[in-house]
Amino acid sequence: MRLSKSFSKTIKDYPKDEQSLSAQLLIRGGYVDKVAAGIYTLLPLGLRVVNKISNIIREEINALEAQEILMSGLIPKANLVTTDRYDNFDALFKLKGRDEKEYALGATHEEIVSPLAKKFTLSYKDLPFGLYQIQNKFRNEARAKSGVLRTREFLMKDLYSFHENQEDLDRYYDEVLQSYWKIFERTGIRQKTYLVYASGGTFSKYSHEFQSETDAGEDEIYVCNACSTGVNKEIVEGDFECPECKSKEYQIIKAVEVGNIFKLGTKYSQPFELNFVDKDSKIKPVLMGCYGIGIQRLMGTAVELNKDEKGIIWPEGIAPYKYHLISLGENSKQRADEIYNELVSRGIEVIFDDRDLSAGEKFADADLLGMPNRLVVSEKTQDKIEIKKRNSDSPELLELSQIT
Amino acid sequence: MRLSKSFSKTIKDYPKDEQSLSAQLLIRGGYVDKVAAGIYTLLPLGLRVVNKISNIIREEINALEAQEILMSGLIPKANLVTTDRYDNFDALFKLKGRDEKEYALGATHEEIVSPLAKKFTLSYKDLPFGLYQIQNKFRNEARAKSGVLRTREFLMKDLYSFHENQEDLDRYYDEVLQSYWKIFERTGIRQKTYLVYASGGTFSKYSHEFQSETDAGEDEIYVCNACSTGVNKEIVEGDFECPECKSKEYQIIKAVEVGNIFKLGTKYSQPFELNFVDKDSKIKPVLMGCYGIGIQRLMGTAVELNKDEKGIIWPEGIAPYKYHLISLGENSKQRADEIYNELVSRGIEVIFDDRDLSAGEKFADADLLGMPNRLVVSEKTQDKIEIKKRNSDSPELLELSQIT
Repeated sequence: MRLSKSFSKTIKDYPKDEQSLSAQLLIRGGYVDKVAAGIYTLLPLGLRVVNKISNIIREEINALEAQEILMSGLIPKANLVTTDRYDNFDALFKLKGRDEKEYALGATHEEIVSPLAKKFTLSYKDLPFGLYQIQNKFRNEARAKSGVLRTREFLMKDLYSFHENQEDLDRYYDEVLQSYWKIFERTGIRQKTYLVYASGGTFSKYSHEFQSETDAGEDEIYVCNACSTGVNKEIVEGDFECPECKSKEYQIIKAVEVGNIFKLGTKYSQPFELNFVDKDSKIKPVLMGCYGIGIQRLMGTAVELNKDEKGIIWPEGIAPYKYHLISLGENSKQRADEIYNELVSRGIEVIFDDRDLSAGEKFADADLLGMPNRLVVSEKTQDKIEIKKRNSDSPELLELSQIT
Repeated sequence: MRLSKSFSKTIKDYPKDEQSLSAQLLIRGGYVDKVAAGIYTLLPLGLRVVNKISNIIREEINALEAQEILMSGLIPKANLVTTDRYDNFDALFKLKGRDEKEYALGATHEEIVSPLAKKFTLSYKDLPFGLYQIQNKFRNEARAKSGVLRTREFLMKDLYSFHENQEDLDRYYDEVLQSYWKIFERTGIRQKTYLVYASGGTFSKYSHEFQSETDAGEDEIYVCNACSTGVNKEIVEGDFECPECKSKEYQIIKAVEVGNIFKLGTKYSQPFELNFVDKDSKIKPVLMGCYGIGIQRLMGTAVELNKDEKGIIWPEGIAPYKYHLISLGENSKQRADEIYNELVSRGIEVIFDDRDLSAGEKFADADLLGMPNRLVVSEKTQDKIEIKKRNSDSPELLELSQIT
């Protein structure tokens, strides 16, 4: 993409109404636009990041043989009354249609996916299966002060799994847990992310959260000094003891939840009578698991964990473009143009600063936007191209053919 | 995909609460699931069709150099008060947040895109540009009786364009019009689709709709016998005269609107003070156009126009899979399996009916699901494969290498 044709532009001033640094950088870089508190529009660059994250998640979740669907955003009131959540789930936005029918906006989709699964699940032969979607969620948040880390609407990957017994649910849950590590590795946040024990519910003592260490986070986590297992402060009673290795040594960190996985058991299958006939012709309730990742929150977390005072340092896997090409001086314009066209024709993702700006302004924007590699073409580079990693101070000279 | 592993299954009985044949076929084929009146979940097969349609639209709209974004679904009340639509737009779903803030759900996005454009538009040098999204719209419909043709929520491609003068808006509008013909050609509905004059508004005498002929449609269109130009009955006053060729000969057809394009002029730029500085340093309001296509409606229309008594006949461009492979008899199972694996490894889109069902049941499902080409492997076909187009009765025998 040519920056001269980009709709969005970088913004010099720090937005005054954003406390989190990730939101400030994403707004200043023209990645997102703030519509109102907790409500953002994804601009072209931000949408590219979100699509890259979504596709990584798709690849890993498809590898579990889960099938992608797209559920409705409107959830009829009756579905939520069935599970007793219509009046007990604070984060629901509620609304009324012209025919006096009442709905809530989907904040999570157990109440849609369970009756759907019931329509196609008859016997143990239909189990197990997984259904997921990447879809806009709405949450009636009391406060929405952390930029894109906690918002009133956001894309979420929500996966639901369906099983004939606890053993199979446990097996699948562990597979999803491993998928999540792959996703956080590929999106560049694994190193500072912890597997954290959190509160379970009726059917399970614990659930698991994936929490990334950042001062912008809202959670406090006890992290075991011996094995790095985390425990959410919410469930620590009395003295800390690591649930994995029993060590009592820990440190407390601030963190943001980037994913969670949960054994639902029969919590939602029972109210919807989502049953199956087992091998002995007995009717039994289906066991369920649910697994979420907030996409914009992952984007914001990636920025919190990968930035410096100059701007964003995108991890390779989710950068909107791999290269940021800059031409310096009138004499290099045509050559930079040819290099840009060549790279595009080779299918290489490159953003091209072809604007009439000073070197300083172009370098500052490249640092703010944060592509992993900066390419400079100037009289000084002669017939080569200067390449510098965003997180390095040592440029190198390369031939055009070496850029891949 | 192996049908033995498919979450959705075909349904024998016609759904009693669906009047339109497209909705009946899409539900029976397991493409969509009805959540409530006017509210559907896209199942794996339906999502594939919707993604194919979306990608065709993306390619054609990107060719106009429009830039893709993703706007918020929640629209603050203040934005809609600015344009006087909060109390005058029947189809808005309205809701209140916990902080007493009021919102409407996005039914169309002029009230988000106009203030967004204002942030990045300073002078004539920034114009023209186009912004679009493919996003879930919500409409508080009084009636929702036409299956996926008129729903309370649906994906929509909405494009907005921004111009310095009428001439440039006219030019862009004509380019979008040509893009729309390409989209309807590639999605298999062009032949029965008409360009139709419809009511304009304050800034334009007419807008244009693209209307596809089907008895399931809700609109009545006068179609000129001489040049096939249409006029929506809503704007025909007195005797018909074709606005293009002045002929007075016509027929009336029933049709469904699959797209519309509209010159907004300054209708939305004025209330938001979306202005620019022109070449003579004068401040002028930006001129706007808007251009919509409903994605699920396009899917439903494609089914209405491409079906027979046995089921759907997907146009090649939007079929979820190109081939539907069937193995007949125990002895052909292994060979069919090898053929399936070979086709998948070659990147060919194929659905494989590997279930233990009769030939009759498999053929009926293939006709209902409607992939463009049916492949049969049986003892009778020996080392070849029988191929039959969905809309033909003449099978042929091919080598595996001939299937591409």
